[in-house]
Amino acid sequence: MYSGGYTGKILRVNLTDQTAKKEKLSSKIAKDFIGGAGFGVKFLFDEVKAGIDPLSPENKLIFAPGPFTGTPVPCTSRLTVTAKSPLTNLVGMGLSGGFFPAELKFAGYDILIIEGRAEKPTFITIKDGEVHFRDASKIWGTQTFDCQQIIKDTLSDQNFRISCIGPAGERLSRIACIMNERRAVGRKGLGAVMGSKNLKAIAVRGSGSLNISSQEKFKTARSQMLKAMKQSPVLYPEFSMTGTPTNVDNTCALGIFPAKNWSATGLFTPADQIGIEALQTRRIGKEPCYGCPVGCSQLRLARTGPYAGILTEGPEFETLYSLGGQTGVDDMDSIIAADRLCDELGLDSISAGVTVGFAMELFEKGILTLADTGGLKLNFGNHEAMNRLIRLIAFREGIGSVLSDGVKIASEKIGKGAERFAMHIKGLELPGYDVRGAKAHGLSYATSYTGADHNRGYAFQEIFGIPVPYPVDRLSIEGKGKLTKWNQDVRTATADCPTLCVFIFDMALAGTSLKNTASLMEAVTGIAFTPEEVARVGERVNNLARAFNVREGVTRADDRFPERLMTEPLKGGAAKGQLISEEDLKVMLDEYYTVRGWDLDTGIPSREKLVELGLEYVADQLGVK
Amino acid sequence: MYSGGYTGKILRVNLTDQTAKKEKLSSKIAKDFIGGAGFGVKFLFDEVKAGIDPLSPENKLIFAPGPFTGTPVPCTSRLTVTAKSPLTNLVGMGLSGGFFPAELKFAGYDILIIEGRAEKPTFITIKDGEVHFRDASKIWGTQTFDCQQIIKDTLSDQNFRISCIGPAGERLSRIACIMNERRAVGRKGLGAVMGSKNLKAIAVRGSGSLNISSQEKFKTARSQMLKAMKQSPVLYPEFSMTGTPTNVDNTCALGIFPAKNWSATGLFTPADQIGIEALQTRRIGKEPCYGCPVGCSQLRLARTGPYAGILTEGPEFETLYSLGGQTGVDDMDSIIAADRLCDELGLDSISAGVTVGFAMELFEKGILTLADTGGLKLNFGNHEAMNRLIRLIAFREGIGSVLSDGVKIASEKIGKGAERFAMHIKGLELPGYDVRGAKAHGLSYATSYTGADHNRGYAFQEIFGIPVPYPVDRLSIEGKGKLTKWNQDVRTATADCPTLCVFIFDMALAGTSLKNTASLMEAVTGIAFTPEEVARVGERVNNLARAFNVREGVTRADDRFPERLMTEPLKGGAAKGQLISEEDLKVMLDEYYTVRGWDLDTGIPSREKLVELGLEYVADQLGVK
Repeated sequence: MYSGGYTGKILRVNLTDQTAKKEKLSSKIAKDFIGGAGFGVKFLFDEVKAGIDPLSPENKLIFAPGPFTGTPVPCTSRLTVTAKSPLTNLVGMGLSGGFFPAELKFAGYDILIIEGRAEKPTFITIKDGEVHFRDASKIWGTQTFDCQQIIKDTLSDQNFRISCIGPAGERLSRIACIMNERRAVGRKGLGAVMGSKNLKAIAVRGSGSLNISSQEKFKTARSQMLKAMKQSPVLYPEFSMTGTPTNVDNTCALGIFPAKNWSATGLFTPADQIGIEALQTRRIGKEPCYGCPVGCSQLRLARTGPYAGILTEGPEFETLYSLGGQTGVDDMDSIIAADRLCDELGLDSISAGVTVGFAMELFEKGILTLADTGGLKLNFGNHEAMNRLIRLIAFREGIGSVLSDGVKIASEKIGKGAERFAMHIKGLELPGYDVRGAKAHGLSYATSYTGADHNRGYAFQEIFGIPVPYPVDRLSIEGKGKLTKWNQDVRTATADCPTLCVFIFDMALAGTSLKNTASLMEAVTGIAFTPEEVARVGERVNNLARAFNVREGVTRADDRFPERLMTEPLKGGAAKGQLISEEDLKVMLDEYYTVRGWDLDTGIPSREKLVELGLEYVADQLGVK
Repeated sequence: MYSGGYTGKILRVNLTDQTAKKEKLSSKIAKDFIGGAGFGVKFLFDEVKAGIDPLSPENKLIFAPGPFTGTPVPCTSRLTVTAKSPLTNLVGMGLSGGFFPAELKFAGYDILIIEGRAEKPTFITIKDGEVHFRDASKIWGTQTFDCQQIIKDTLSDQNFRISCIGPAGERLSRIACIMNERRAVGRKGLGAVMGSKNLKAIAVRGSGSLNISSQEKFKTARSQMLKAMKQSPVLYPEFSMTGTPTNVDNTCALGIFPAKNWSATGLFTPADQIGIEALQTRRIGKEPCYGCPVGCSQLRLARTGPYAGILTEGPEFETLYSLGGQTGVDDMDSIIAADRLCDELGLDSISAGVTVGFAMELFEKGILTLADTGGLKLNFGNHEAMNRLIRLIAFREGIGSVLSDGVKIASEKIGKGAERFAMHIKGLELPGYDVRGAKAHGLSYATSYTGADHNRGYAFQEIFGIPVPYPVDRLSIEGKGKLTKWNQDVRTATADCPTLCVFIFDMALAGTSLKNTASLMEAVTGIAFTPEEVARVGERVNNLARAFNVREGVTRADDRFPERLMTEPLKGGAAKGQLISEEDLKVMLDEYYTVRGWDLDTGIPSREKLVELGLEYVADQLGVK
């Protein structure tokens, strides 16, 4: 039995030396960073030196669940994986749910830090206190679901929970993800970091359990949380039965479902084909994360035609955007097949889809030819070509060798003006909301510490019209700096750090999340928290992450959009005519930097702000006066 | 703890009534039939009336492991599944290994009989004494590996062992199989029987264990068995590291690797492309059955090209024949992909491949046209077309709707002389030895109670030159009747009934198997057996099965080969010029019927023989004077 939500232990695994060390988690770090994203950013800043190659042994992979993970706090079996991203060269962080996060806690660890590089393909097993390094030469090359099953069979234990990479991660594709069961730690190429370490998989099994500091306080806090969840107008039964894809219909209606590499947003609105109705006819059940009463995770099955019989968990809204809208594909079953293929091959489905759509636009514009594509007719809407290209990307074969590192690097290699069509911010492919029609959403993409990331400061106010903390006009730039800071800090503090599912935050808790997190922290961990202190954790993490990025060379000039979004107004739909001009961006950034306490010219956090957040050592390191 | 190898219990599950009944296994049946095939044939004859539609609720599915299954007798975690076959309308029986057979014993059952038909898609769970009927509507349509995983997740227990069908079985494809993990109960369309009962899966978990009657006798018997296995010239390390595919090289050298729908045997010998060397470069490990020290089951992975990343257990020799030689495909990775596809869709890979090869010959001869195939260019060697056609067959789409019931029914539907190219005996597609160059092999195919089945009386003497019980000339018809009876009876008695893996029989025990089985039976079950009594069980089962088939209308006229094999001599290779003429068949059948004690005109067992075998009631039923 571990005490107060935390196990109190960090497991540090060095693949170069094949050693595993247990270290104590300090209570100061717990109070200052809570868990998850906080731990990831803290250890990344402190331990990963500036300027290293993200695919070198100097990079580290930091797995961090939260203090509630594995406890009866619902919807918190999640973890962050943090490393320097090979796609952005900045903070790389992804989250996933499932059972792996809880299992890591049961095994006894608040943090798992993977260092170095194994000489040959390796997988590690963690069974409570025991850590073993095992030869993965034979399973190198396997797809992710086969890999997980083979490891269970090899260990003669079906109860291990496994995170692994597929062929894409092995080949150091910078858009590779890490899979645990059917869940991806997508985005930012963390699968390539794992691949660069010759680490095929991490298998975990634990027999411990987590102790709650005050059962009485916990009962109250938990019932308040469950009550708020029950009162949500969308969580039950809708979201519980559909998951994220209702957003296809919603964003199509708002005119911000991005289409055909963002060239046709508002003009291509296939809600009938790939929206929620079409999806639900293919729904066969759900696979909730550990301890989740909602279970947004849906299993869907292609039933007829060439993809019949193919199952996927999802596709999520983001996948419907990337493998659907972005590529102009409106064949639902082919999207299901492509989603499964991405999971099997270990490719981030957002970046993969955006990259396919990018290649399609280049093909349609004649920048890529049939000779380049090896005969693939990469027209928008060609779902067969999409599925083939995904394989090529994962295996770095043919045109896939150019595209395997995402649109930024690919566009630089291809030249001929391809850069204009590379839809990314700081190297990370854009997620699925056309920010020309949702300005705070845009500002968050531009300033997020992980690049164009919908999960760092999601402006649900603009997408769902929820008036928390206050109502906003999605098309206006006014007040979006302050709103974005709120979105980033509060979400970081109450979702990314305690690893609460963001959907619960968005749909039920946003208004009460600081109070909710403070109560739960006190009840579970015994560490006293005020809502203000919780918010402060979010601000601390965002500033520390910004400091990491500044140390890597990020400046104000990097906080911007692809040129297309700043020069081409939306051509149709409910947000027709909208764009984010250079001036719009300037106004929003000025406001944002001001409320953040960052220098208006450089975007570097001020010493005053850093000191206020207890990050004086960071100010020293950055040489901030 | 169950006593003496047997649990002593039969579980009878009625899907119509949703009832489960436990019955006692009589010691007479145990002594007379041992287990596995013996139990299957006995209950099939006694309980399934003549003339019923195999896809009606009147058919039964009988799962029967053996008395050693789940005990420390190596290589015996196997079971038979028996039903009236929808492909042959005769005894339908298949075997598979893995963990499911042992788990069924641990749960407490020697036999599981499935009766009736569920109103809607159902799966059943068996956890020791508890049987539950569960709604499978949602998982109807899933592929077999997904199905198994979803059931484990649904039950929140990863330790269930599951047998299930895929889309092919659901669509009543008469070449559908049943899958447990990566193992198939292939052949004879047993998957369609399961599908016709609306039974998607059987999930089993047991906590019991098997008791050995005499530990002292057991130690002696087991060590003798292990010694014989160690002395085998091929079992270790060769077979243990390769499994069955070395036989590609062997049969190519013998000129009996069937090619291009048996039109080009001896001329197409792609041992370099799909033989053991090519295979071993793709080998990534093994997945032994429960309690097997040999582990012939190999995992192989396609590494480059369009099939890269696809894994399969196998491909076995038979699959290399059916999806390779038979189709003229020599692309190893495409065969791996097709093998996996068959497993996922729940198609018997032998019948599926033979059916594809059949369609290819029809296409090359113009009997099928592009209009028939929906544009598929079904030329021999077209691996892409093969993989597409397999999907169509499983889903009964396009030309697949005609081919989904195997070559016999398809050829009758297609007409235009297609029957000549349908390579089957009694409806079952031919396995992978061109019997024109292996005559006893041929006679066994012609007389096996399950149709053209390499597993009922495999003439290893002809294939490997093993001189047990005596040396033979593979090209001669002399003495093949007697040899075939020996092969069928001894194999049935010592492999199919006690569910010992046939490979161990072939490669290590054939010469001592009657003695070995007698000793093990006595030691494990406490029932005294002489080697002669063991042999008699084999004879009893073969006669009872023949009686079942006679009752269904089988006569001497059915014990024959496709015309091609009786009229077209082999055109090349080491057996060039060979065929089995009408006269050859007559001579062999006469000898075979004579040693069997069957009527020379009708092929019906004599009353004398049946009485001698304790089957007087069978003679009465058949009206044999």
